[in-house]
This record gives sequence, structure tokens and C-alpha cells, in this order.
Amino acid sequence: MSEQTKKSGDIMIPQTSKKRVVIIGGGFGGLKIAKGLRKKNFQVVLFDRHNYHTFQPLLYQVATAGLEPDSIAGPLRKRLKNFKDFYFRMATVESVDTSRNCIITEIGELAYDYLVIANGSLTNYFGDSELERNVFPLKQIPHALNLRSQLLQSFEKAVLQSDTEEKQSLMNFVIVGGGPTGVELAGALGELKLHVLPKDYPEINFKKMMIYLVEGLPRLLNGMSHEAGENAFNYLKRFDVQVLVDKKLKSYDGKTVTLDDGMSIPASTLIWAAGVKGNILPGVADASVFKSRIKVDEYCKVIGTDNVYAIGDVAYFPTEAYPNGLPMLAPVAIQQGTLLAKNLVNLDKGKEMKKFEYLDKGSMATIGRNKAVVDLPGNIRMKGFIAWWVWMFIHLLSIIGFRNKWIVLSNWIWNYFTFDRSTRLIIRPYVKKPARQEKEPEKEEVTSR
Amino acid sequence: MSEQTKKSGDIMIPQTSKKRVVIIGGGFGGLKIAKGLRKKNFQVVLFDRHNYHTFQPLLYQVATAGLEPDSIAGPLRKRLKNFKDFYFRMATVESVDTSRNCIITEIGELAYDYLVIANGSLTNYFGDSELERNVFPLKQIPHALNLRSQLLQSFEKAVLQSDTEEKQSLMNFVIVGGGPTGVELAGALGELKLHVLPKDYPEINFKKMMIYLVEGLPRLLNGMSHEAGENAFNYLKRFDVQVLVDKKLKSYDGKTVTLDDGMSIPASTLIWAAGVKGNILPGVADASVFKSRIKVDEYCKVIGTDNVYAIGDVAYFPTEAYPNGLPMLAPVAIQQGTLLAKNLVNLDKGKEMKKFEYLDKGSMATIGRNKAVVDLPGNIRMKGFIAWWVWMFIHLLSIIGFRNKWIVLSNWIWNYFTFDRSTRLIIRPYVKKPARQEKEPEKEEVTSR
Repeated sequence: MSEQTKKSGDIMIPQTSKKRVVIIGGGFGGLKIAKGLRKKNFQVVLFDRHNYHTFQPLLYQVATAGLEPDSIAGPLRKRLKNFKDFYFRMATVESVDTSRNCIITEIGELAYDYLVIANGSLTNYFGDSELERNVFPLKQIPHALNLRSQLLQSFEKAVLQSDTEEKQSLMNFVIVGGGPTGVELAGALGELKLHVLPKDYPEINFKKMMIYLVEGLPRLLNGMSHEAGENAFNYLKRFDVQVLVDKKLKSYDGKTVTLDDGMSIPASTLIWAAGVKGNILPGVADASVFKSRIKVDEYCKVIGTDNVYAIGDVAYFPTEAYPNGLPMLAPVAIQQGTLLAKNLVNLDKGKEMKKFEYLDKGSMATIGRNKAVVDLPGNIRMKGFIAWWVWMFIHLLSIIGFRNKWIVLSNWIWNYFTFDRSTRLIIRPYVKKPARQEKEPEKEEVTSR
Repeated sequence: MSEQTKKSGDIMIPQTSKKRVVIIGGGFGGLKIAKGLRKKNFQVVLFDRHNYHTFQPLLYQVATAGLEPDSIAGPLRKRLKNFKDFYFRMATVESVDTSRNCIITEIGELAYDYLVIANGSLTNYFGDSELERNVFPLKQIPHALNLRSQLLQSFEKAVLQSDTEEKQSLMNFVIVGGGPTGVELAGALGELKLHVLPKDYPEINFKKMMIYLVEGLPRLLNGMSHEAGENAFNYLKRFDVQVLVDKKLKSYDGKTVTLDDGMSIPASTLIWAAGVKGNILPGVADASVFKSRIKVDEYCKVIGTDNVYAIGDVAYFPTEAYPNGLPMLAPVAIQQGTLLAKNLVNLDKGKEMKKFEYLDKGSMATIGRNKAVVDLPGNIRMKGFIAWWVWMFIHLLSIIGFRNKWIVLSNWIWNYFTFDRSTRLIIRPYVKKPARQEKEPEKEEVTSR
């Protein structure tokens, strides 16, 4: 082989005659484009700060002890094995330098011919550092594990608490955000309250466990149909969830939740599912950024650049149906990744590139056992048992890797027939971040012992 | 009910007319005695610092990415649900006060009528704090997860390393201790080297990955037959493990392993499987302690006490066959726990107590796919494929809970047919403990981000 190893920082990628595509992020979009460029005339380098991809739609089941974290995560290197001219680097990308066509990472710099930004989204705390310090986000596996520990630790503490107010605060769970994550989490907590926790803690009166779901808009599941929102609302009522719509969070100091209408709830756990924002890397031109996402054209190319692309949650692409940009959902990232891989191959061959068009395949949310809502294209609305089966089937298909599908399915069968949630383990107890600790503003941090 | 809640610290256990048995530790022994006292005329309070029990014999498979941690752990409260007059408290017991018949815990004090010490064993670093700071123990689930992260992080770092010596140090894995844990771990690492890692890291030459197994005695598996030791030795050779018998570790500073014969190995990972010691709580009389274990009589009663019992790893009970005390194995704890429960019931009814006799059911170790050694009573020795099946069958039976058996079996089938180890995830990267940090001497600490 005539390949000559040119060291770029410590990144150690050989320099070849092929054009180099650098992909930032190994999520749905990044994996799709990597797969699409397999056996094509490119050298591909994929960066991710984790060595695994995460099936984010099921994080809430990890947080509520229904699934093992390891069955919704898969090693990235396993996905990419036997890919030729393919390199994975577990590293955080710190910035991009489009003028020099290179990225700067914690392990050095690397030049690219084409750059694909597919680094997804971050939890949006809207600049409120007190909030950020005190709430539980749910975007990564360590977040889900922290929340799982917190839920169980709350009841272990409640058992020991003789002060009525303190005890109630431990048993109040406030979820902010009435989108799919918030709704699904509220439902799962409702099921824990109904079927699982009372057997574990016979000393606790579970009528006093309160689940609040706070949503700023007048309805739940704003991205879905009116019927879906209504149905979710009614299902949650059956689980005794206090749904508070048209109310915004004013503040949370780790002890008391204050809403904009003056209502206050003492709660030691607040789960923050109220919004995400694009993960904008330093070096992306301000002119390319709109509403915390990167503006792209119909070829997923970042506006104002020649060889930089963005796909998935981080990309802002408004259409007639979606004037505020395509939704931050896995199918968008998957469709964009698939097309972009083909387009890069076309570009390399001097062929014409194809324009991106989003094919809406519907959206869905599950509230619990036999209870889900599904909207399909063509105004098809489903709810209840059938919707729940559709939800399970689609999610099972979407989980990456046969083994993970198999383990998730095994767990679901078990959970369905036993009404159990078996992974209620406090493996690394959650320890609150100290307030004095300075945090980097744009990075998600995960703190636990 | 006429029960009156008397607050003992914050422990909140009601005071009843029944005698109170306090059990320290929810391992094999503690769970057995809890189960044996179910529906008997006792109030039972079980303490454990974790909310789950751990199936320790399979920790090495978690550490080597073969099993999910959640499938070898089970929530203690689930095991104990529907037990009447039964209380679980997740808390560390700090000391015992036999003169006042009470235990002192982090959440307060509690009086007992009978105390059962079943808190197992701790990793024995023989007072070497440098060693303790730098090695990887393997006694708890967080240990296994830390080791899993470390293994994978080592290769992620090796990919980036151009310095040959540094790279080799990342790829040298030294295991100290040639008992079952060390042997099984060495075999599992050998399989990773052979079947899994080369596909993940095509840039690395895996001939250079070195696995050393260091044992102070002249043979492996000292608790088993001579043949078993020999066979294990030969199996490990096939996995290219460097077995160094009759050699003791002199020091390890986190970078260089030095043996007593002067040999030195640069290695960034040293796994410490060289010994455990009884978990002796402050307040246990010095006169009752021998070789870091608590001396008990044939009724598992602690020598010098009237109502304090000790079972399992922490108990020292020499017999003719075992002049140095019964082995620190699950079957001993299980048998002692079962008998002690019966004896406490007998004692309460004024009946005679039965003497404990250990029934040796054999011992075994697996080195890898189709490779195991089994010694059964009556000088029956097995090896190879049959021994491996016996090993799997016995372990599967011993795992607590049907769901965990099911998930473990699913994984084993998957691993067998695919030669894969699917949970190679760095979920919480391992971060070395800072040297300056003061550590409590007798507690096992788990450090990671």
C-alpha cells in the first residue's frame, strides 16, 4: 500500500488520495451517512465523544427502570466494523475552522474535504444556570441513570422521613415539558406508582406520590394532532397525573417549583423536558445560525459554505409544512443522512445532486400499557391498544442492532406480563452537583459518583 | 393494629412484641436468612448499603462486556416484597455495640434481639495505599463498570498513541491473583483479544496486546484440584495469556508493575484479584476476630457473644477439611443462612439448635468458550466442553430471579453463536482517583465521573 501516515495532531489518520469526509456525531444521521459512504471513493472519519450510539426515544424507559441502559446503546465501532478507509475517533470536537477546512478536537486538528455536522441537540435551559444545576435532563444514558437513581433514592429517603412536608417533597415529581418525552415519562411514572412501587415500599402511602406535568402551551403533544393531545391528556388523568397546561415554570431552586401563575410545588425532583437547541460548535459563522440551529439549503449544505453540511437536529431547514424548520426527530436525520451520502457520491462523480424532501412518516407517543397515540400521514389517527402495538413495532424496528432488539423485546414481554420494572437499581447513587462548581456553558455535563 | 412506632434515630422501625432480628448485608447469606424467617415469629430488619444484591461470580463478564450489569443485580426490595414484619433499609452500618445490643448506622441506631452479620468481604490491599489507589478491584458492580470503561478507553487511547512504549503500556493488562476471579478474567480478556477487539480496532496489532496473570503460589486455582489448576494453565496458554506463577507483586505505581523477582511490566491497567478479607465492623471485639474474619461456633454464633451471629465470607469457622476456615464462597453463606434461620426459629420455640456442617458441592472455573474446569465431591474432575456446560447450568440456576436468568441466558446464547461481546460501552468514563484525596481505610470506594 502506498498510503503515507501523516500525523494530524494525535489523530493519526493516514493521508490518502481519496477525499476525506469528516462526520461529527454518531447519532441517527451520522451513522446513516457513514453507512452510505461505505465502499465509496472516500476516506471517512467519524467523531463522537461517546463510543456508542444512543436510541434516545427509549431513554425514558431506562430512567423508569423498564430497560437496561445497555440495550438502548450500541458500540459505534461494532456498527462500523469491516468498513474500509474508515476511522472512528472517540473525542469531543471543540470547534470548526471553515477558512482552513479543518476541525479542532481535544486530540488535535484534522483537515477535511467535506465536513458533515451531525452533532444533534443539547438540552435548552434558556440560560438559567440555577435551573441547569437543579433539574434532571434526559438526553443521554448517564442522564437516564442519574434520574433512575434519583427516583429510587427519593423513596429510600421518604421511608426514613418523619417530617410530613419533607416527605411530600420527596414524593412530588414535576416534569416540565408536555412533548413526547414529558408525556411518556409521566405515563411511565404513573405506572410505577400504580404497579411497582407500592409493593417495594409497603410503608409508604402511594396516594401521596404526586406526578405533575407542566406545559407552557394550552395543550399536550403540540407537534401532533389535536386528538392525540386530548387522548394523551385523558390517559394521563387515568394515571392520576396532574396535567398543568398553559403554565410556565418561573423558577426552581432545587426545593420549590414556582410557576408563572404563582402556584408553588415543593419537589426534590424536577425533570426538564422543555426543549432542546442545536449543538452549535464555535467556528460556525453567526450568519449561518438561526434559532440555535444551522441554516442549510436543500442539499443540506450550510448556508455560506462550499463543503460543509449539517443534518438532523442541528440543521435548520424550513419548508412550507414546517416554516420553523423540520422537527428535531430521528426520521429527519435518517432521511437527510441517507440522501447526503448519495449526494456526496454524485458530487464526486460530477453528477447532479438531489434536493432533499422530507417524507413525514407520522409521529407517536406512548403513555403506558395499551395506551398510545399515533398520527399517520393522511389524517390517520390511532389510539389505545392498536396505537400501542404500532408504537412498539416501529420502535423495535428502529433500534439499531439485532441483539438490542432482542433484549428490548424480552424486557417488554416480561414487563407486560408481570407488570414489573426490573432494573430498579441504584448502581451509582446520584449526587447533586455542587453549586460553586463552574460549568462550561454549552456542554452537557453528567455528574454522579 | 396495636403497633406503636418508636423512632430509633431516623430508622423508623415500629416496636412490636416480636423479637427483632437485624441482618447486616443482603448477599447470598443475608437473603437466605431473610427468606427463612419469612412468616416466622420475628420482626426482621435488613440493612445493605446498596438497594440490590449482586451475583458476584459473573462480575468478570460485566467487566469484559459480555453481560449487562443490570442482569446480575436484582433489587433487594423485590426479593422481599410481601414479607410481613419485614423492613429493608438502604444504609451503611457503621458499627455494632454488643453491650447495648444495637447497631449504629448512617441513619441512626437500632436495637436488636438477634444480630446477624452477613456483610461479606472487602478487597484486601494488605495496607498498601499506593496499590489501592492504582489498581482495579472486582467486588462490586461499579468496579466491573469501571474496569469495562478502562479496558475500552485503553484501546481508544492506543489508537491515538504514536509513542511505542506508551502504546504498549496501554495494551498490557496485568491480573494479580490466580484464583477463580483472576483465571476467569484472564480467559475472558483472551477471548476479547481473539474474537472481538481486532474487528473494533483494525488499526491496532493485537499480537501486541499482552495479558499477564500473576500468582504468588506455584499453581493456579489453589482451592481446586491439581488437575484443575493444570488444565486452567493449559487453557490460558491457548489464549496466549502469560501465566506467571510463583511470583509476587512488589509494587505498582499506576505505570509499572514490579514483581518480587525483579521483573517489571509497564502497564496502565492492573486488576487486583489477589485476595479478600472479612468486612469487620468497628465494635466487634478484637478477641472475636481471627485472620480478618469473625470467629463463630458451630451454630454460627460469634465467639464471646450471646445473640450475635456471623455467616458467609465474614465468618471464620475452621473444620477438619478446612483448618483455615471455610472457603469464602456463596454455597457456604447460603448453607449457613438457611440453617441459621431454622436455628433462630428453634431457639425462639425453645427447641434444640442444629450444628452447622458444610456440604461441599464442588468448585469450578470457566476459562472461555467450551473451556472450564469442575471439581465435584468424590474426586470427580471434569474439563472442557462438559465442564463448561456444567458451569453454565449451575451459574444459571444460582442467579437470583427468573428475569435475570432469562436475560443472562439470552446473552450467553448470543455470545456463543456470534463470538460477540455486545456491551462494550464506555457509559461513564473511568477517571483515576486523585492521589491527594484522603480515603477512609476500611471502606471500598468507587470513583468515576
